[in-house]
Amino acid sequence: MKSGIPFIDRTGADVEVAERGFVRARMPFEPNINHVGIMYAGALFTLAEYPAGLMCGATFDTERFFPIVKDVHIRFRRPASTDVTVEMRLAVEEIARIETEAAEQGKADFAIESELVDAGGVVVAVAEALYQLRSVSAPIG
Amino acid sequence: MKSGIPFIDRTGADVEVAERGFVRARMPFEPNINHVGIMYAGALFTLAEYPAGLMCGATFDTERFFPIVKDVHIRFRRPASTDVTVEMRLAVEEIARIETEAAEQGKADFAIESELVDAGGVVVAVAEALYQLRSVSAPIG
Repeated sequence: MKSGIPFIDRTGADVEVAERGFVRARMPFEPNINHVGIMYAGALFTLAEYPAGLMCGATFDTERFFPIVKDVHIRFRRPASTDVTVEMRLAVEEIARIETEAAEQGKADFAIESELVDAGGVVVAVAEALYQLRSVSAPIG
Repeated sequence: MKSGIPFIDRTGADVEVAERGFVRARMPFEPNINHVGIMYAGALFTLAEYPAGLMCGATFDTERFFPIVKDVHIRFRRPASTDVTVEMRLAVEEIARIETEAAEQGKADFAIESELVDAGGVVVAVAEALYQLRSVSAPIG
């Protein structure tokens, strides 16, 4: 599944599964090589960031809520020289908390931690990202 | 000046000035719009990351040293709906420390803090990035 965001779709990234509380996405190696023959850091960042938005779309009522990203901390651990995949999860209880808080207060912060893994199972980067689910009817601060 | 990295050049980003201890770069708005009409977070990340590499190229002896990025923490403060620019600096004393340490120990960590600014002068994101300058003759750990 493509994201519909040109910046992301130019990378060739693909969301393979997006369902309530779970997403898996892949960043292809070839179009995202840097000057020294490994995957460019910005491609890894993109893979660590955007799938959460599609998971939100498969988890929350998109007529009532939309997510924004507030903060991302990414640590590059190993050079990536294959396609890289990521999986993200939101537990049932956390989904309920976010939904209730966003409905009541107009917004709800939530964190996603993820590991980016190469074709050999090596963790090439880890990320902690902070998102906010916002109610479409609440004023944007 | 283009980066020579396809991922970056596809965004239309441009390094306007790169000299010893200073770089200024620009990310154009139009090709990097997301699904809600603001600049995609990954374009802001890219602008917060890659200019440091070109500053290194204009600062250190590229026959002896090359930089890698280890860690980036980026905070998205405001939506960006224009081109965004960034300036990065390395002080003379810091350049000397990095050079000496990399020559003696094969590597030297250094931090770059940057503000991403829209056409109206509003800071849309702030980033702290950690790089390492490595000696080409040192083993890669």
